[in-house]
Amino acid sequence: MTETALIAGNGRLPGVIAAALAAAGRAPAVAVLDGCSPDLPPGVEPLRFRLERLAVLLDTLAARGVGRVVLAGAIRRPPLDPEAFDPRTATLVPRLAAAMSQGDDAALREVIAILEDWGFRVVGAEEVVPGLVPGPGILTGTPSAADRADAARAAAIVAALGPLDIGQGAVVAQGLCLALEALPGTDAMLQFVAERAAGLRPDPAGARGVLYKAPKPGQDRRVDLPTLGPETVRAAARAGLAGIAWEAGGVLLLDRAAMVAAAEAAGLFLWARET
Amino acid sequence: MTETALIAGNGRLPGVIAAALAAAGRAPAVAVLDGCSPDLPPGVEPLRFRLERLAVLLDTLAARGVGRVVLAGAIRRPPLDPEAFDPRTATLVPRLAAAMSQGDDAALREVIAILEDWGFRVVGAEEVVPGLVPGPGILTGTPSAADRADAARAAAIVAALGPLDIGQGAVVAQGLCLALEALPGTDAMLQFVAERAAGLRPDPAGARGVLYKAPKPGQDRRVDLPTLGPETVRAAARAGLAGIAWEAGGVLLLDRAAMVAAAEAAGLFLWARET
Repeated sequence: MTETALIAGNGRLPGVIAAALAAAGRAPAVAVLDGCSPDLPPGVEPLRFRLERLAVLLDTLAARGVGRVVLAGAIRRPPLDPEAFDPRTATLVPRLAAAMSQGDDAALREVIAILEDWGFRVVGAEEVVPGLVPGPGILTGTPSAADRADAARAAAIVAALGPLDIGQGAVVAQGLCLALEALPGTDAMLQFVAERAAGLRPDPAGARGVLYKAPKPGQDRRVDLPTLGPETVRAAARAGLAGIAWEAGGVLLLDRAAMVAAAEAAGLFLWARET
Repeated sequence: MTETALIAGNGRLPGVIAAALAAAGRAPAVAVLDGCSPDLPPGVEPLRFRLERLAVLLDTLAARGVGRVVLAGAIRRPPLDPEAFDPRTATLVPRLAAAMSQGDDAALREVIAILEDWGFRVVGAEEVVPGLVPGPGILTGTPSAADRADAARAAAIVAALGPLDIGQGAVVAQGLCLALEALPGTDAMLQFVAERAAGLRPDPAGARGVLYKAPKPGQDRRVDLPTLGPETVRAAARAGLAGIAWEAGGVLLLDRAAMVAAAEAAGLFLWARET
């Protein structure tokens, strides 16, 4: 059976994937980009690598019998040291530099293309850990008619943001947009709502509002899907929201059981919304 | 010479207009919507009115010889009391209710149409106080090439937000969108940048970022233009920005001299950008 490698950035997702694969008896080779510190399960000994020596890493993985690769976790573009390139990686620099100049999505597409040139199959987290990306359905709670209208308005707003390559989240309450996601991310947006938007709902006894998340249109679904986790649920509760909705099949849940428990404790709904 | 009436909501703009007209020897009749408290110059005795008795107010203004009307200041949609309508205003209710159901812009267009039906000419603040809405030009400072690129990216983002009827502002630094404006407004967005985005600029020594403001596309330029004032400049300085840019001819400056002084003190540029 072909081996799996996990190329890991920051955050909880790499550890979730590594643990799920290990539990299935298929512990992956884990490679961590220099400068990143993902939460990994105990006992995992990651290969640390620099982007300047990507070719060396890929040769190592191939020699270990790796056939498929999962990319997971947030990365920031590392500063590149021209002196640190190995000769084969150096030949990739023009491709990478051209892609980077076109933005994060283009850079990621080029990295995937390089992995495929090396003979690896690049797969999404969902393929190695079924259930991470739920299809349509309500996981807990009951969105009201007003909540459904707020989710629909938020989904339209997030869809319109898509081509701009900004954040892909919005908070809408009673039809009004309380916050839009930008570089600081979902949790920062929710804290903004808690601190600055509490008194702005026209009807204090009316609908509390909905956080909506979706992937960018045209985004490669194998990598870089938006994630929600128990912390998001608690932040949404502190922002006084009625619940969280997201594009079904387009958002990854870091710990579904803990999310449902947190949502039930706070009285929030969780809704993978069909678009 | 025809008299001018000022129908005032909240904020500093009504007082700026009233003071400028009084200084020109043309003190306006000032009508203040019930529930609003604009900053007005000393000595101004406003007519207070309720929306349910709009027709009575308009007859009063007409009897005083008012020929042109300026609408200024922010309002929130007041709750309407069905028992409080006078008979003529009651006949306007279907028009107002239909417009209100289509959003703030539609409601405002309908109020303007009603004023015009009464024989008033509705004019923008710029027409009665020249200089409030500057045309293209740099008021102070010098945007760098990177600042100009950030302003261009922010302008594209704000233009794309236009059809969504949300806020019309964004902060971009080094090509990255640090914040988008929503219901809480420009100052809340700038405080968010100060608190949550300070460490997110990729190059700590690089471009500091630009606040960009523009009116909604298709917005009636006579009413409800976005405003900038000295407080905005100070908030932009606290957010660590390089300057403020806006759509030339589309943004109203509350106190231009104080804005320039605040920008010079903080080392920010102010740029009415041609689009």
